[in-house]
Amino acid sequence: MREIKKNVKAENTQQQILDDLDFEIITRLQKDGRTSYTEIAEELRITVGTVRNRVQRLTENEILKIVGVVNPFKTGNPSVTMFGIKVQLHLLEDVISELVKIPEVRFVAAATGVYDIYAEVITSSNEELYKVFKSQMSKIEGIELMDSSLLLAIYKQTYDWEVGT
Amino acid sequence: MREIKKNVKAENTQQQILDDLDFEIITRLQKDGRTSYTEIAEELRITVGTVRNRVQRLTENEILKIVGVVNPFKTGNPSVTMFGIKVQLHLLEDVISELVKIPEVRFVAAATGVYDIYAEVITSSNEELYKVFKSQMSKIEGIELMDSSLLLAIYKQTYDWEVGT
Amino acid sequence: MREIKKNVKAENTQQQILDDLDFEIITRLQKDGRTSYTEIAEELRITVGTVRNRVQRLTENEILKIVGVVNPFKTGNPSVTMFGIKVQLHLLEDVISELVKIPEVRFVAAATGVYDIYAEVITSSNEELYKVFKSQMSKIEGIELMDSSLLLAIYKQTYDWEVGT
Amino acid sequence: MREIKKNVKAENTQQQILDDLDFEIITRLQKDGRTSYTEIAEELRITVGTVRNRVQRLTENEILKIVGVVNPFKTGNPSVTMFGIKVQLHLLEDVISELVKIPEVRFVAAATGVYDIYAEVITSSNEELYKVFKSQMSKIEGIELMDSSLLLAIYKQTYDWEVGT
Amino acid sequence: MREIKKNVKAENTQQQILDDLDFEIITRLQKDGRTSYTEIAEELRITVGTVRNRVQRLTENEILKIVGVVNPFKTGNPSVTMFGIKVQLHLLEDVISELVKIPEVRFVAAATGVYDIYAEVITSSNEELYKVFKSQMSKIEGIELMDSSLLLAIYKQTYDWEVGT
Amino acid sequence: MREIKKNVKAENTQQQILDDLDFEIITRLQKDGRTSYTEIAEELRITVGTVRNRVQRLTENEILKIVGVVNPFKTGNPSVTMFGIKVQLHLLEDVISELVKIPEVRFVAAATGVYDIYAEVITSSNEELYKVFKSQMSKIEGIELMDSSLLLAIYKQTYDWEVGT
Amino acid sequence: MREIKKNVKAENTQQQILDDLDFEIITRLQKDGRTSYTEIAEELRITVGTVRNRVQRLTENEILKIVGVVNPFKTGNPSVTMFGIKVQLHLLEDVISELVKIPEVRFVAAATGVYDIYAEVITSSNEELYKVFKSQMSKIEGIELMDSSLLLAIYKQTYDWEVGT
Amino acid sequence: MREIKKNVKAENTQQQILDDLDFEIITRLQKDGRTSYTEIAEELRITVGTVRNRVQRLTENEILKIVGVVNPFKTGNPSVTMFGIKVQLHLLEDVISELVKIPEVRFVAAATGVYDIYAEVITSSNEELYKVFKSQMSKIEGIELMDSSLLLAIYKQTYDWEVGT
Repeated sequence: MREIKKNVKAENTQQQILDDLDFEIITRLQKDGRTSYTEIAEELRITVGTVRNRVQRLTENEILKIVGVVNPFKTGNPSVTMFGIKVQLHLLEDVISELVKIPEVRFVAAATGVYDIYAEVITSSNEELYKVFKSQMSKIEGIELMDSSLLLAIYKQTYDWEVGT
Repeated sequence: MREIKKNVKAENTQQQILDDLDFEIITRLQKDGRTSYTEIAEELRITVGTVRNRVQRLTENEILKIVGVVNPFKTGNPSVTMFGIKVQLHLLEDVISELVKIPEVRFVAAATGVYDIYAEVITSSNEELYKVFKSQMSKIEGIELMDSSLLLAIYKQTYDWEVGT
Repeated sequence: MREIKKNVKAENTQQQILDDLDFEIITRLQKDGRTSYTEIAEELRITVGTVRNRVQRLTENEILKIVGVVNPFKTGNPSVTMFGIKVQLHLLEDVISELVKIPEVRFVAAATGVYDIYAEVITSSNEELYKVFKSQMSKIEGIELMDSSLLLAIYKQTYDWEVGT
Repeated sequence: MREIKKNVKAENTQQQILDDLDFEIITRLQKDGRTSYTEIAEELRITVGTVRNRVQRLTENEILKIVGVVNPFKTGNPSVTMFGIKVQLHLLEDVISELVKIPEVRFVAAATGVYDIYAEVITSSNEELYKVFKSQMSKIEGIELMDSSLLLAIYKQTYDWEVGT
Repeated sequence: MREIKKNVKAENTQQQILDDLDFEIITRLQKDGRTSYTEIAEELRITVGTVRNRVQRLTENEILKIVGVVNPFKTGNPSVTMFGIKVQLHLLEDVISELVKIPEVRFVAAATGVYDIYAEVITSSNEELYKVFKSQMSKIEGIELMDSSLLLAIYKQTYDWEVGT
Repeated sequence: MREIKKNVKAENTQQQILDDLDFEIITRLQKDGRTSYTEIAEELRITVGTVRNRVQRLTENEILKIVGVVNPFKTGNPSVTMFGIKVQLHLLEDVISELVKIPEVRFVAAATGVYDIYAEVITSSNEELYKVFKSQMSKIEGIELMDSSLLLAIYKQTYDWEVGT
Repeated sequence: MREIKKNVKAENTQQQILDDLDFEIITRLQKDGRTSYTEIAEELRITVGTVRNRVQRLTENEILKIVGVVNPFKTGNPSVTMFGIKVQLHLLEDVISELVKIPEVRFVAAATGVYDIYAEVITSSNEELYKVFKSQMSKIEGIELMDSSLLLAIYKQTYDWEVGT
Repeated sequence: MREIKKNVKAENTQQQILDDLDFEIITRLQKDGRTSYTEIAEELRITVGTVRNRVQRLTENEILKIVGVVNPFKTGNPSVTMFGIKVQLHLLEDVISELVKIPEVRFVAAATGVYDIYAEVITSSNEELYKVFKSQMSKIEGIELMDSSLLLAIYKQTYDWEVGT
């Protein structure tokens, strides 16, 4: 096993060191979130305790999250909307932190290109979407323009990108 | 426990029946993908075998996927790009099925609004992005217009939306 | 009562003559579609038969339509979408005639400005919207670009504009 | 006749109960606004008084409106303009309530997608349109951007969508 | 000669009466601005004095302007730019009146559609254009967005549209 | 009077020589198209015949056009529309030459910036506009996208830009 | 050698006189920045001192800059982003002077057309780009809208345009 | 001096090895393209021959280009236009290679974001720009949309970005 360490930044704040062992563990869990720690330990020739500690540290530092992801279109008739947002740029971080607080907002990313922020909202109906839009999103100061598209079906959603490269 | 069943459509093809038990199991795994089946079984007063069977059926039918989700910006310096695509509408499904085949394309959804398709591409560098863009995405017939934004940081990514409502 | 006649064109094809009497009758029905013909006759000092004949001619010529209009957001949770469409201009009329055939398309108008055609689609859910979008609208040849907005609430819908001026 | 009741929301305020009888009556009036109450009563095996009461309640609650709808392009040479409006989102409701007050504004809907509001204006000429635009619409605070298209012909306008589903 | 008079509005302020005689005179001058008044008088069977008086009144009221129009691209290498402007709508008239004052701005029109105002600027070079743009146009309060296109050649410029219809 | 000659190109084809005398004559006619040749001759100390010959040559070569320009909004209620057109660039000249042929198209210019072509259409009504749009403009091959704005009032229209600089 | 002098403006401030000799020297250095002054002197039949003095004056006046230009995509994996910026026009010069101060901003130009300013940013990674974007560019007052494109490869970059014409 | 070598890709084709020495030499020439090889050699403690060989290899491989860069706005009144181009993506490389051939096109880069290609054109006048646009750029097959902005002044243009990081 390679031993070279890499500096990985924790969202613009404190630095964290991920080593190859972390990446190997992550890779296995990306494919199957329920792979047993025993299996991982055996494969990587380390103790189960090491696997458990590493996973715990990775999840506590919000680098890794092991979750059951559902396709919303297969479990109901939800309203899934992708917002592309242009902001008054000096308020970029304020807008982001307000969006993050809204429970129905499931995804928030800063970007550059055609939009400054992408935000995905999932509600149980268009009516609920309007409530979130009108009483919460529209109250945020600093939003210049908000385009949106109603997602109608998800055809691919994979999580096993190569880490540590 | 409520007993009313709901019809849930499997991506526009065959119908599948999800009952409240399924929704209860999903809800627990959305929060923590490694919740033990024993714990779920006890909480819902069913056998561990039932939990295991249900989860297996849900994952086989691509309704549920238990995975380790990493924040790509915390595990390296990747190039994460969100494409908004307008297509010749009569080729909508062909474009989607070509996009789905490209490994670096991690997310594909059909939409209506400002774009017809959203596709997210994750590569290890901008140079790799250009390769995917030039040799794969740009070869797909039927794309009219492709805007993109480079994602620069992910601030929220949650998966525990309410199912079965 | 004024007697001057006006030429009114029947959708770019045959000409029809509407006189002031027609306009007076229309004005009353625009306000209340169930105004009794007797009341109209008395007010305009003509026979009930004249009112009936005029109304019949107006509706047969598709100038007037007496209908119960419901606010879709008050009778359910529908998906109401306004499409703004840019077409290959030489196919403008073909696209329009294909759109008109789709039952879920409730409104079709030719325009100039930011879009060439406006089309409103009402379905019982977003899922149905996607079916209409994918299997019918997207098959129409000649559509260059289709933007859309999901209507979330209707705040005003009136029909009593002044005719005959 | 089915007896299951449905909760239907009166524009974000008080709830109202529409039952299947209401939907049956509405359905008949959507097709022909002058269908006699006697005919409806016989068909649904209820009394004429019940029909009358139900229709009265539906219209008073602004769920149903029975009107003579004219095709503006067949009764004159009007100026019919569809405005797509982007607003400072925190002023969304203020802008809507100002638009609703302008008599020439015939239709106002909140939306998400490419525009936040759609508003249709019908005037007797382009000159009148400019007056409405300059002295009324342009005075409304909170409008960020206003695109418009001049409607040139209406090809379809139907009102009989399925209610109660 | 027909005698019916028409009301013609003087730019939203005072009304002016143009009669058929005015229109006949205008029509001749639209084709050739130097047609002699004698020729017009003979053709319309009126006195030369009448022609002169009418033309004087029309020009004083800014209804008619007899000018030598040059194709700027045939008399030098100018910079001809068409600006499409979106304004804060409540400042529409202020922006217009500021634009009108700038000598290099040759054409100003209020509009609805993709832009609120069109303004054409003619300067002797791109460098002069930048001066006008930077020191004059950009100082106007209320401009939200200003797109522009550099005109490169004029292929048609006619002035003889039919008046009085 | 300066004697230096300048090369002025006749729309990309043959070269023409305009001298300072031409520019002096043009300048006077730009201000008032009916300035008498005698007055111009005296001011420039040349013969009336020279003025006449020069003007004739300038108009024959389509460098100068002396016309009565009317403000369309002061002589009726016309429909004046400015089209911004994007074309398949290799068909740019074909599209231009088709547009030039349509009588209602009063102005055609090639451009670069947000549009490839600007075209102004003046008709007596919106209905006529639609006829021109549908039966003539929309038949032209090579138009990719056509935005338009309805002009509502003209606030400035001057023709006396400085020539010969 | 021609002797006619030309007025060349030093960025909107003081005028500078460039003569044909300057242009001849520039032309040689545009092709090869290391052409020896001796070679230039011989070719232009002037002294080496003259060449040296001229080049010094040209570079001091920021008319000429002799540099080694690298293709960033051939010397690493940088993040090269082109920003198109729309500003509150009355703040155009302030925005420009703030952009110029940011070291990572390598190119700033004022423009008219689809954008008011173009700015190119080169950083060593997307992460660095985000820092520049968030902590520096987004703090600038007066930016209305900022679109961007990630450059992925440079195919041509030449500097030998013809000067002095 | 550090000795670690880096792999640097020569425009998506063959690999080239740049070492720290190359980067040190480049860094000096980026600042001043006429730094003498002797000075560089002394500073880096290598022979002049090594410097010369390295520079030659770098320029032959089109990694480095030593040129005199002029500010076009200080040496004349040119027309400098930045084109943002959207292409039929499967023709991306063909469009690029056609653009590269046009001498007036000075810069060509592939991109993703709001445009697929950026191209800068420098001509001596707007008239020349139109010739290039009409006879060369517009003939290229595969261009879907071409926006442009006329550059009016360059405020910053630096070339000394950090290499080898």
